[in-house]
Amino acid sequence: MILTVTLNTALDLTYRVPALKPHASHRVTEVTERPGGKGVNVARVLAALGHEVTVTGFAGGGTGHAVRAALAGQARLVDALLPVAGATRRTLAVVDEHTGDTTQLNEPGPLISPAEWRAFQEAYEDLLAGVSAVALCGSLPPGVPVGAYAGLVRSARAAGVPVLLDTSGEPLRRAVAARPDLIKPNADELAELTGSYEPLRATQDARRRGARAVASLGAEGLLAVTAEGRWRAAPPARVRGNPTGAGDSAVAGLLSGLAERLPWPDRLARAVALSAATVLAPVAGEFDRAAYEEVLARVTVLPEAGSAA
Amino acid sequence: MILTVTLNTALDLTYRVPALKPHASHRVTEVTERPGGKGVNVARVLAALGHEVTVTGFAGGGTGHAVRAALAGQARLVDALLPVAGATRRTLAVVDEHTGDTTQLNEPGPLISPAEWRAFQEAYEDLLAGVSAVALCGSLPPGVPVGAYAGLVRSARAAGVPVLLDTSGEPLRRAVAARPDLIKPNADELAELTGSYEPLRATQDARRRGARAVASLGAEGLLAVTAEGRWRAAPPARVRGNPTGAGDSAVAGLLSGLAERLPWPDRLARAVALSAATVLAPVAGEFDRAAYEEVLARVTVLPEAGSAA
Repeated sequence: MILTVTLNTALDLTYRVPALKPHASHRVTEVTERPGGKGVNVARVLAALGHEVTVTGFAGGGTGHAVRAALAGQARLVDALLPVAGATRRTLAVVDEHTGDTTQLNEPGPLISPAEWRAFQEAYEDLLAGVSAVALCGSLPPGVPVGAYAGLVRSARAAGVPVLLDTSGEPLRRAVAARPDLIKPNADELAELTGSYEPLRATQDARRRGARAVASLGAEGLLAVTAEGRWRAAPPARVRGNPTGAGDSAVAGLLSGLAERLPWPDRLARAVALSAATVLAPVAGEFDRAAYEEVLARVTVLPEAGSAA
Repeated sequence: MILTVTLNTALDLTYRVPALKPHASHRVTEVTERPGGKGVNVARVLAALGHEVTVTGFAGGGTGHAVRAALAGQARLVDALLPVAGATRRTLAVVDEHTGDTTQLNEPGPLISPAEWRAFQEAYEDLLAGVSAVALCGSLPPGVPVGAYAGLVRSARAAGVPVLLDTSGEPLRRAVAARPDLIKPNADELAELTGSYEPLRATQDARRRGARAVASLGAEGLLAVTAEGRWRAAPPARVRGNPTGAGDSAVAGLLSGLAERLPWPDRLARAVALSAATVLAPVAGEFDRAAYEEVLARVTVLPEAGSAA
């Protein structure tokens, strides 16, 4: 069993409109909704790969009800979300059918009370007892202390559970010091943490701050720096398509590899293949299984120069 | 008891964003939600004025649940919405805090099955037995036949209940022939129905098509053409503010006057004062009671030339 934590779950809405014009009135031609938040997306990919996965975090209100109702229909996925008084946020992607571009509007999320946060911490410790790896994903809803992930990383390490952290800003900065097994910042998040856009320098700095390994996904593939070595993993060709969810799929690949204690090159190959198969899928955030199998067989994982990281 | 019909109820969401930029990602700074759809808005104004009012139409899904939960807290308002399998639509107003402008995105609404539509017609006939007036308001959700309002107008007339119709397009065109007591098209809706933007010509044409009276609200006030005469009602000064909901407030004024069988000039004064008090209210769609009382005392209602309409 793998555990993913999504403190700020979401009901992800997508509206299609013929053309988005500020200050005009629009008839939405198509509405789709699905459960979201990074950890929920990661869990969906893991379940599709055949892993048993438990989803925890908070859910509340009518939107939370819709999230839970949709999760209830997913095989191999256990809903361990905690009910809260506030309502789960919505995220809205408005797709302009003329240009194909997307405009994103994200609600901040419900206000979590101190009692709700304490209840979550207790439930989380109980869940850690039965899992092979945990991922802590996404933004913090209002009311959750900025050092929240640092505490959750410490609990996972105390329980002997490998922990992957995928967040940004101050919550990332605080939690890195608690020594997560792996962080997965993109180039912007890594620069925000370390002040550097130079991959080698930024990655080394992130490890000096406490992260035991760093994997950063960019357009060319994945650069990973770990205690065992340093690698660059890339798909056979540059993939074109919709990058929505590619990062979450990469987390799913890394996390399943962490849970199975695979060698690093195998973890990275899985992450890159899943990420590419997500970009190639016709539906945003889904992954194409045939593309995954095909890319996985052809991913290149090469040691980086100066591999004594 | 007054009845309002809202076949396409809505959960009206308002997002405030610092500045709306197409194709960018936005953090929503404030989210508000309230029950909506024209007939629901009309009912809210009537209830605030002290009338007992019943709301009917369709509600479904998590959004429908949110609509009904909010209505349950309103005094003098009876929820007689019919549950349906589909989900009540959302409407989203995105307010740009920098410019103050609003971008509107409206979902189409749930697909209503033939059985659901039949169940509504039966419930509506039962409700008509106990009411002094009925308003049929807004767009039709998918699945409801385009001639729906024509049938509902006929039922009301057969039951001896005065009926006000506030819709547009083909549903308006079809229902006008069923002889509603009053229609309230704006200039665009009237032009769409009659092909003319010339108020006198358009109004006469609308009456010739079947409407027993026509009241059209514009920036200068209300022009009404009825069998008893023709009037123009105007506030004491041009009102500036947020026009959201002003038309629904005017319907509430006309409908309460219809229910009480007030003389036409009194109905029109009430409608204009409520409309102005809505434009002047700090919250979009609400009305300012003090402004209502003040404007009501100072509305001018003058017979229009050629008053043998």
